[in-house]
Amino acid sequence: MLLNDAHRAALLDVLTWRRDVRHFKTDPVDQEVLDRLRATMDLAPSVGNARPWRVLQVKDADKRAAITADFETENAKAAALYSDDARRDYNALKLSGMHDAPVHLAIFTETAPREGRGLGRQTMPETLAYSTVGAIYTLWLAARAENIGLGWVSIINPERIKQILQTPDTWHLTGYLCLGHAEFQDDTPLLHKTGWQENVQTHWKTV
Amino acid sequence: MLLNDAHRAALLDVLTWRRDVRHFKTDPVDQEVLDRLRATMDLAPSVGNARPWRVLQVKDADKRAAITADFETENAKAAALYSDDARRDYNALKLSGMHDAPVHLAIFTETAPREGRGLGRQTMPETLAYSTVGAIYTLWLAARAENIGLGWVSIINPERIKQILQTPDTWHLTGYLCLGHAEFQDDTPLLHKTGWQENVQTHWKTV
Repeated sequence: MLLNDAHRAALLDVLTWRRDVRHFKTDPVDQEVLDRLRATMDLAPSVGNARPWRVLQVKDADKRAAITADFETENAKAAALYSDDARRDYNALKLSGMHDAPVHLAIFTETAPREGRGLGRQTMPETLAYSTVGAIYTLWLAARAENIGLGWVSIINPERIKQILQTPDTWHLTGYLCLGHAEFQDDTPLLHKTGWQENVQTHWKTV
Repeated sequence: MLLNDAHRAALLDVLTWRRDVRHFKTDPVDQEVLDRLRATMDLAPSVGNARPWRVLQVKDADKRAAITADFETENAKAAALYSDDARRDYNALKLSGMHDAPVHLAIFTETAPREGRGLGRQTMPETLAYSTVGAIYTLWLAARAENIGLGWVSIINPERIKQILQTPDTWHLTGYLCLGHAEFQDDTPLLHKTGWQENVQTHWKTV
């Protein structure tokens, strides 16, 4: 299929208005929307066509509370690495929407999948986790096109999350995601707006 | 901006018709298309808004030949891991379009960026490389919407590529990409069609 200018423009809208969302309404996400998002993840690229991503939707209240507490512990440790003004700025940032987001997804990579028969990952085994990142980003864009926000929480202890969720040894945590209806839409990263880190342009040189 | 059904449908087309391309025409890619693709990479998500991706467009013939030779060395080693039928099947696969693709991009991650001030990557430093993967996938989708194919070559020795391209110590190779006009369009992964690895559905469970 040859794609056209309308595809390009629509994709640009989705990419431009995708944000890392930390401000969620508590309203639920329709199950049919989640079903579509899950199906769309099947379209992500993967090394050896191995599709090594494993999604756990965390509904259990105790598990969610334990994971949220882990974020708070790790976030306090991260804040302590800064001093004075930087620490005050850091503490003013909202870095997770875990309390309000109706949907929590823990995304793992199966590091020893049968699928793919090892193809493409002998010299760079990290391509399995990279495949999972592609699946997360596919979900992110598909969610945005459905006007559902997604926030990626990385300020957590992966081993602790594995322990809380009792996952197999070969699973590696790749990301913890919050999904829900966003409080607001934006085309500019929050870290740029707050002055923590301004947008920089892609570095591209010819050799 | 609220997105609509047309955005969702267009995104689904782009995702569905994105392939890992290994069959390229040798025709060049217009510079204005490359300029648009580079600008679109600025829209990728990144940890701490650090945008740690570093793109080297490899035009030098000797460097391209050295990198292609490295692929061939590593691919032969990978083939030797299989026996009998599997090795025959592996050797029948075309796993890189490096000879024909007009554009070669080596994509690195700056593992010690000033940008982002460390935010979001204390417990999971791999989120820097994950950000680069997001930038690669952004490029991949934007290219597909321009009817430009992209192939990700992972069967290479990252240290050897760094040596050939003489990159800074803190740069880590995340992927090596071929871009160009594809010989054909497809909505099905080649590894599924050849029977190497059939498509499997996304694993998703509730806990």
